[in-house]
Amino acid sequence: MMFVSLVRILGLLLALVSATMILPICAALAYGEYGVISSFLIPIIFCFIVEIVLFFSTRRREFKLTSRSGFAVVALAWVSTSFLGAVPFMISGAIPDFADALFESVSGYTTTGATILAEVENLPRSINLWRMQMHWLGGMGIVALTVALLPILGVGGFQLIKAETTGPEKGKITPKITVTAKILWFIYIAFTLVQTVLLMLAGMDFFDALGHSFATVGTGGFSSKNLSLGGFANVPAEWICIIFMLFAGVNFSLYYRLFTGRGIELLQNTELKAYLTIVFGAIFIVVPFIMPLYHSFGTAFRYAAFHVVSIITTTGFSTADYSKWHPAAQAVLFFLMFIGGCSGSTAGGIKVIRWVIMGKQMGIEVKRMLHPHGVFSIQLNKHAARKDMVFNVSAFMFLYFFVVMITAIITAVDGADLLTSVTASLAITGNIGPGFGNVGPAYNFGSFSSFTKYWLSFAMITGRLELYTMLVFFMPAFWKK
Amino acid sequence: MMFVSLVRILGLLLALVSATMILPICAALAYGEYGVISSFLIPIIFCFIVEIVLFFSTRRREFKLTSRSGFAVVALAWVSTSFLGAVPFMISGAIPDFADALFESVSGYTTTGATILAEVENLPRSINLWRMQMHWLGGMGIVALTVALLPILGVGGFQLIKAETTGPEKGKITPKITVTAKILWFIYIAFTLVQTVLLMLAGMDFFDALGHSFATVGTGGFSSKNLSLGGFANVPAEWICIIFMLFAGVNFSLYYRLFTGRGIELLQNTELKAYLTIVFGAIFIVVPFIMPLYHSFGTAFRYAAFHVVSIITTTGFSTADYSKWHPAAQAVLFFLMFIGGCSGSTAGGIKVIRWVIMGKQMGIEVKRMLHPHGVFSIQLNKHAARKDMVFNVSAFMFLYFFVVMITAIITAVDGADLLTSVTASLAITGNIGPGFGNVGPAYNFGSFSSFTKYWLSFAMITGRLELYTMLVFFMPAFWKK
Repeated sequence: MMFVSLVRILGLLLALVSATMILPICAALAYGEYGVISSFLIPIIFCFIVEIVLFFSTRRREFKLTSRSGFAVVALAWVSTSFLGAVPFMISGAIPDFADALFESVSGYTTTGATILAEVENLPRSINLWRMQMHWLGGMGIVALTVALLPILGVGGFQLIKAETTGPEKGKITPKITVTAKILWFIYIAFTLVQTVLLMLAGMDFFDALGHSFATVGTGGFSSKNLSLGGFANVPAEWICIIFMLFAGVNFSLYYRLFTGRGIELLQNTELKAYLTIVFGAIFIVVPFIMPLYHSFGTAFRYAAFHVVSIITTTGFSTADYSKWHPAAQAVLFFLMFIGGCSGSTAGGIKVIRWVIMGKQMGIEVKRMLHPHGVFSIQLNKHAARKDMVFNVSAFMFLYFFVVMITAIITAVDGADLLTSVTASLAITGNIGPGFGNVGPAYNFGSFSSFTKYWLSFAMITGRLELYTMLVFFMPAFWKK
Repeated sequence: MMFVSLVRILGLLLALVSATMILPICAALAYGEYGVISSFLIPIIFCFIVEIVLFFSTRRREFKLTSRSGFAVVALAWVSTSFLGAVPFMISGAIPDFADALFESVSGYTTTGATILAEVENLPRSINLWRMQMHWLGGMGIVALTVALLPILGVGGFQLIKAETTGPEKGKITPKITVTAKILWFIYIAFTLVQTVLLMLAGMDFFDALGHSFATVGTGGFSSKNLSLGGFANVPAEWICIIFMLFAGVNFSLYYRLFTGRGIELLQNTELKAYLTIVFGAIFIVVPFIMPLYHSFGTAFRYAAFHVVSIITTTGFSTADYSKWHPAAQAVLFFLMFIGGCSGSTAGGIKVIRWVIMGKQMGIEVKRMLHPHGVFSIQLNKHAARKDMVFNVSAFMFLYFFVVMITAIITAVDGADLLTSVTASLAITGNIGPGFGNVGPAYNFGSFSSFTKYWLSFAMITGRLELYTMLVFFMPAFWKK
């Protein structure tokens, strides 16, 4: 039965995720936060007991990876780990309310980084580490999903993007899914460790350096400071985060190519080129408008680079309250909220590749106006791309608009003003974190009602799984047979 | 030579448009505004002299309607009539600044209805009539373009939409373009006259009734009152305008069908059904949120219906300052700004049909996730639609986003706050008129710089001509040969 297979997989996943809570326990021991240890120990023990019971009480069977079971396992994995992630918040009393704790946990795993906490510096350090660690686990999950698991399933929005962006190999980096996932995770871990060492060299202590590396590589955005990364007042650390956020927004399969001597493919990668063009273009526009505020080109450039990269990669760190910037600089950041990082990265949002495909289709339509009988095709990575990608992208855009609209209306019903509700919706659906208005970098999501927080949690997971994966559950056909 | 043909056509068009200035002259005579008469008489005389000179100095030749000459004549017609429309404003001194006068004129012809005037009630009545009359002329032009001229050219965004929405006849309502245009204009004039009579019965005087009918049927939005239609405090007039705005947002070729005994096709029209569903759905959501403000269901329903219809049809009349409404009601109006009326109507914006196509494509993608080998097609008006429509819509969306982004950034550079710049851009590109913030219904566009006003004028024409028609001029290929 599929149900038994599902429960076994989820039980194993929860046991593995709970096992990573060893790290916050280490932090708790290191900082003498002995009262918090049980908040992590209880879920670990519970998950392991459940896993042991499942292991011995159910018959092991081959899990048949069909599109139907694939969707179910992915969505349930995200939901169940989110519940697990909320447990330490509630037991420790750091976030006593369930809706709040769930929101914070979902925001962690989905690498959104929106918080309901106005004050994070009084939290136990182990709890803050757990918040940032969830970003890292979620990011790892999304990389495995987008670059390894889902393409094999051969269905859904992910698959299409993947199949195109990695070029002629059609979604199979290595023949075996486990090998692919292992290589990707190795790259992912390597990035995290290198950034941790660099941040420590820049003066951060070990757990802050590790936590912020987790949040950077996962493009999450939680921080242990109320002022986010700005709270450290550490210029080298800011530059390190800018660089690693930029790296984390790139398709991880490209790093695989780089390390296997096929770096030339990076230069041919259409999405990467577009991504870097947008990033540098946006910085170029923002700098002159914030120069008067920061008096020096260097400072203005750093702030511009930081927030452009933070928003487009959907990380959501901040070093300044950009809602006080010149409106033109704000407008640039606002439109970056619609773009997002590259496919196959840990970034959320619409993704650069979708805009590239639409933009190239636009070029074709213009050409067709003058040459009605010409035959044109979209070129990606120096190859002609499949025409039906445009269908998929177009459908995705409709669904994205729809989810953003519903989410904005729900937050507006809750009393948020128009700018707040629209940008909160974009920040949540795109897994960015902060928006403008009352969800700007100086504010948080704590003042929303419990109902709104549940909806926003749903929207974060929906956005993270590129909409279709969640939507398919609402299709009657999914439940048939 | 194409150039001579172009000049001849434009000369004739300008002479015809200037001839309609007879009407404001009549108003000036009726209200004793004798000083204003010359403001209209001078451009009439000038245009007629030019036309006579052109007529006798150039050889008449067959105008070859190619895609290239079609785009040129359409774009130049819009630009040159806009210059002509600005002349009475400047000569009369009503709007002495050229950038202002041009903005107001473009806003008139493109049926946008955004004004730079803070105070319109002190203007000569003949000038106000001319403002509203420009909407009517522009609307007439757009109906002829979208439902008659451009489909014949067989190119561009318009053509595609048209070819699909009118069903199996593939863009040819009647064999001859002139006959089609005449029938459409007859319907258009009939609507205007019926509304004028109804508004007079509701208590408006002749010129106000005629002017507001011009502005309604053209989905324009200029008014002779500072408070727009709300300034009349005339409930029956508000209802009349709600009904006629709703009518003006429908594809005019459907009325043709209705009057030729093929009304059944209206019931099968996918776009019409979607349009009405959105309108009534939006009213249904808005009413409960503004009930507390207006204390009675009837009043709340009227205000909700008025503004929902005014925004979706891109008219832009107002009877209340909706920027003071509950944020949820504002959010609904905000998202309506992205939708627009039906194709082949006088409304601007993205148009309902494009959202319908994207939505149907989304349904197909979801089905494909569960049945990867299934073959699905988009059904429009009970017929399978061409698949390449999705290409066109997708390209249009990209271009729309791009124009909205550039326009928002330009207004933000001018100092408008984020909400103002984004909604001003949507209101201008979608030919709506008012937005939110400092371009809300209680404000105007007068405070922008001259450069911004020129850009906004360009964006209004670009939006009105569904982007491609203007964009094609920036293609090097257009200028070759």
